[in-house]
Amino acid sequence: MKKKRLIAVQKKLLSWHLDALLITTPENIRYLSGFTGSSGVIIVTPAQAFFFTDSRYAAQSKDEVSGFKVRIYKKQINDIGYFIDQLKCRRIGFEEEGLNYAIYRRLKGLLKGKRLVPVPEDIDRIRGRKDSDELNNMEKAASIASVGFDVAMNCIDPGAVERDVAIDIELAMKKSGAEAVSFDIIVASGARAALPHGKASDKKIRKSELVIVDLGARYKGYHSDETCTFIVGRASREQKKVYQIVKDAHDSAIEAVRPGIKASYIDSVVRDFIRKAGYGKYFGHGTGHGIGLAVHECPNISPYSSDTIEEGMVFTVEPGIYIPCWGGVRIEDMVFVTRDGCRVLTKMSKEMTVL
Amino acid sequence: MKKKRLIAVQKKLLSWHLDALLITTPENIRYLSGFTGSSGVIIVTPAQAFFFTDSRYAAQSKDEVSGFKVRIYKKQINDIGYFIDQLKCRRIGFEEEGLNYAIYRRLKGLLKGKRLVPVPEDIDRIRGRKDSDELNNMEKAASIASVGFDVAMNCIDPGAVERDVAIDIELAMKKSGAEAVSFDIIVASGARAALPHGKASDKKIRKSELVIVDLGARYKGYHSDETCTFIVGRASREQKKVYQIVKDAHDSAIEAVRPGIKASYIDSVVRDFIRKAGYGKYFGHGTGHGIGLAVHECPNISPYSSDTIEEGMVFTVEPGIYIPCWGGVRIEDMVFVTRDGCRVLTKMSKEMTVL
Repeated sequence: MKKKRLIAVQKKLLSWHLDALLITTPENIRYLSGFTGSSGVIIVTPAQAFFFTDSRYAAQSKDEVSGFKVRIYKKQINDIGYFIDQLKCRRIGFEEEGLNYAIYRRLKGLLKGKRLVPVPEDIDRIRGRKDSDELNNMEKAASIASVGFDVAMNCIDPGAVERDVAIDIELAMKKSGAEAVSFDIIVASGARAALPHGKASDKKIRKSELVIVDLGARYKGYHSDETCTFIVGRASREQKKVYQIVKDAHDSAIEAVRPGIKASYIDSVVRDFIRKAGYGKYFGHGTGHGIGLAVHECPNISPYSSDTIEEGMVFTVEPGIYIPCWGGVRIEDMVFVTRDGCRVLTKMSKEMTVL
Repeated sequence: MKKKRLIAVQKKLLSWHLDALLITTPENIRYLSGFTGSSGVIIVTPAQAFFFTDSRYAAQSKDEVSGFKVRIYKKQINDIGYFIDQLKCRRIGFEEEGLNYAIYRRLKGLLKGKRLVPVPEDIDRIRGRKDSDELNNMEKAASIASVGFDVAMNCIDPGAVERDVAIDIELAMKKSGAEAVSFDIIVASGARAALPHGKASDKKIRKSELVIVDLGARYKGYHSDETCTFIVGRASREQKKVYQIVKDAHDSAIEAVRPGIKASYIDSVVRDFIRKAGYGKYFGHGTGHGIGLAVHECPNISPYSSDTIEEGMVFTVEPGIYIPCWGGVRIEDMVFVTRDGCRVLTKMSKEMTVL
């Protein structure tokens, strides 16, 4: 699998008119080489591939990296600059989203007579379509996440503290094989459910509150992302109404997914639905995001996206309505694009669940 | 406190000949504004300060941010570019370590007739010296970490799995008030102790092995970082010898710390000591790093550092010896630089502990 990925990148070099490509984002480094450490750099030419790391990772890189010539650097930027300088190449591409300006400036200073070219359509796009290895890891990550939701449903009660619920969820997911949580677990109850990113706080959950639980598990580097909104005790008429609008918006977007459509179209399905229901001003974020080795990656499902949906992509669909001082509802699934539609990878029912 | 910090940055603008400064790193945004979310941008002029975020954080930023005019962006880079364009200013500084090349390129395209200036001596340097609020948070983080080590000492036994030990440590620290672990907990036993960054694996710990435990807790945004190396059962002569060399190297470095010396000098104390003991080639990483809102920040304690030690700085001292196939020892404390020396903030004894 990894060899195929490297070949795909090497082919791209030609279409980008590049003699070499410098790869610096951890996700792309892992995608191509299998390296899981935190300090690494890859240089690919049409015929060769080099992996660089520091001495801390000398042993680990021997175990993990194959298909690359492995080298150890002492002074990262200087050594990389010197190496590139020795290569017979003039146009060196770099990942413009994955290189900060300081490193760019220093490399530029070291590489007289060569051109550093920001790569416009980067490897992230190759990563957008998942292969079967990747899909398996993401399905496993989604299964682990459902263990987290089971814990949430057991723990959420009047009097429970959001933070304690989040800690119990995290522990359960890790005992079930999660390498890490994909992001700080969100447990946002009552008025806090109006915060789309309301990390678990010291607030106690009370009766009749909506509780947004948004969590993800990492498995072999791959993330899941899923949101359920629960109601503690009996739901009011407005709570039921808002929930159903979000649920219907979510369902209609999933129904719309198929290869070839614009990502912005999926967003518009959700946004129009919520707007027509009279809650348009309470949905301020995008409809979803690609997910894989990064929690947010290609494609972007928003009004501003220029991405087109392709078979094999995995992304979230996560509409929400957030009413200040009142609370909120978000419903999120992760979908895998098939030949003629999509398959939902996340496991939890999205019917309104009363706890 | 935060007002003082903002004033310090506004003063710097003048010495950097800047009309405005764009601040994009999450740690600096939190340092100046108190904002804890993941999407924010600050623009400071000599007389004014603006905080930008997206609609998800509208409510949260009202709670957290003071001393700034708060604005909500829809299209982050476009809106920021438009805002800067309207300001009466020509030279706009940016954090070159905190801005990727893609954003730099887009902003540059939006700002005709203005100059984007990479800030050479950035806010990280201001953050290097901790004030009393920050020191309190770091002491608290170090206390929480010692709960983690207590759990480690209870759990590490012949037959225990590294990963399970790490999960129990993390849970205990979170129940004791850690917002998060500062990095993936390292539990590296036996030959794995030769990996300086050996994240906890599925390996079982065995009798007579050295076990490196490296962990940190985050409290109110501030990190701790500490390493103990334990021995399971009786230590061999070589294990004792290597441990003592690392311990003595560590102690001599801490003794050397005082304001005014070069960070590279502290590194040389450690490196020379280990080299003279005959293990020079087994110590491949730097001696330490500043720590605070980021796990790695100013000053850098390595042979290549040009930093000078100042009163109020907090950094780690963490020599190690890593012998492939045999194992390793690392001993790490976090020190706070006082007027005439330093105070160790981390709590665990660094005498050899037999479990």
